[in-house]
Amino acid sequence: MASEKSSSDLTLLDFWVSPFGQRVRIALAEKSLPYEYVEEDLLAGKSDRLLQSNPAHKKIPVLLHGGKPVNESLIIVQYLDEAFPDTPSLLPADPYARAQARFWADYVDKKVYDCGSRLWKFKGEPQAQAKAEMLEILKTLETELGDKEFFGGEHGFGFVDAAFAPFTPWFMSYEKYGEFKVAEVAPKIAAWAERVGKRESVAKSLYSPDKVYDFIGVLKQKYGIE
Amino acid sequence: MASEKSSSDLTLLDFWVSPFGQRVRIALAEKSLPYEYVEEDLLAGKSDRLLQSNPAHKKIPVLLHGGKPVNESLIIVQYLDEAFPDTPSLLPADPYARAQARFWADYVDKKVYDCGSRLWKFKGEPQAQAKAEMLEILKTLETELGDKEFFGGEHGFGFVDAAFAPFTPWFMSYEKYGEFKVAEVAPKIAAWAERVGKRESVAKSLYSPDKVYDFIGVLKQKYGIE
Repeated sequence: MASEKSSSDLTLLDFWVSPFGQRVRIALAEKSLPYEYVEEDLLAGKSDRLLQSNPAHKKIPVLLHGGKPVNESLIIVQYLDEAFPDTPSLLPADPYARAQARFWADYVDKKVYDCGSRLWKFKGEPQAQAKAEMLEILKTLETELGDKEFFGGEHGFGFVDAAFAPFTPWFMSYEKYGEFKVAEVAPKIAAWAERVGKRESVAKSLYSPDKVYDFIGVLKQKYGIE
Repeated sequence: MASEKSSSDLTLLDFWVSPFGQRVRIALAEKSLPYEYVEEDLLAGKSDRLLQSNPAHKKIPVLLHGGKPVNESLIIVQYLDEAFPDTPSLLPADPYARAQARFWADYVDKKVYDCGSRLWKFKGEPQAQAKAEMLEILKTLETELGDKEFFGGEHGFGFVDAAFAPFTPWFMSYEKYGEFKVAEVAPKIAAWAERVGKRESVAKSLYSPDKVYDFIGVLKQKYGIE
């Protein structure tokens, strides 16, 4: 098959704890596509290959397919859907359902990481503001999830699940710094997080909440935050 | 045709000078899809219909198709490609070319409006920083455009052109506040701006540089900026 031949030439430039890189790892696992994983030691610096592959943003993840770079995690996941049409699609087939999936993945993209970072970077009023925002984000996603097993609904585990799942190991840190409990604010999201965490593609792509918490400690030290 | 039937039920909630709304107007014009245009008077407030159609962001543009909302300009344009497959597609067919088009439209999305706003909101060092960033953005897009007639390349006028064209009437304001000339920094972008400005779908969707400059004056007054 054409897709088998070309999938042998996939390389992922990534950083172990990056939720953005983990989206791509989850998608590759869902599609059973083999690839070479290349760890970028971002705390030490950026490789020439990374800088040349993504000169506009200089960020991981970068997927190299036959040496040609694709950048930005959600764009990479869509590329995998389109370049390997014989593999399970993360996006549904219906145009309206696709637009909704893109909207919620984009919502997670714009909101969660930035707000979560402000929870551990700041204290006092800016931290309280970040907490209020995080509670609203979780409640908004809780409403969207509703009683569905996955955000993908009838389609099953899908684009929004792959986009949001990598943040679930960050929940414990958000809870500690923000002094709230996801299970109390958004019990359906907490139950969803448990469900996706058991999925093979997710489990093998993520690290434990403790590892994430320790990594945030390293970042705080790097940035000189108490 | 199915698409003709369903296209009769398109409504766009928009704000005249919004570059994001204008992307959707350009796409609808490229596809010759009729729609009802509903102006939201954002300076006065937001309508119940807007708030109910986009509760997560509360922003225009909103495309209502058969009463069902689609939000976020680039997601709307992709929806139009997928929901009306008999109309000219803004995205190319090849998966890699699609990923590249999504990347550059996303680059414009993340960079131009925010940086441009800092040019007229700030003075001194923050303004100088915004100017340096804007020059880099323009040079980066100049390199991507190269000698192509449109960003869409062989595909012709496409997704990135529709995403970036609405900012061309803002160039004059960026030039005045930033004290630079697009034609000197990025002559190919300046020539492209002239070309797309003459395209019917673009010309009918945009307002003059003077109108944009006046609107920025209204915003400055509203925000109490000298």
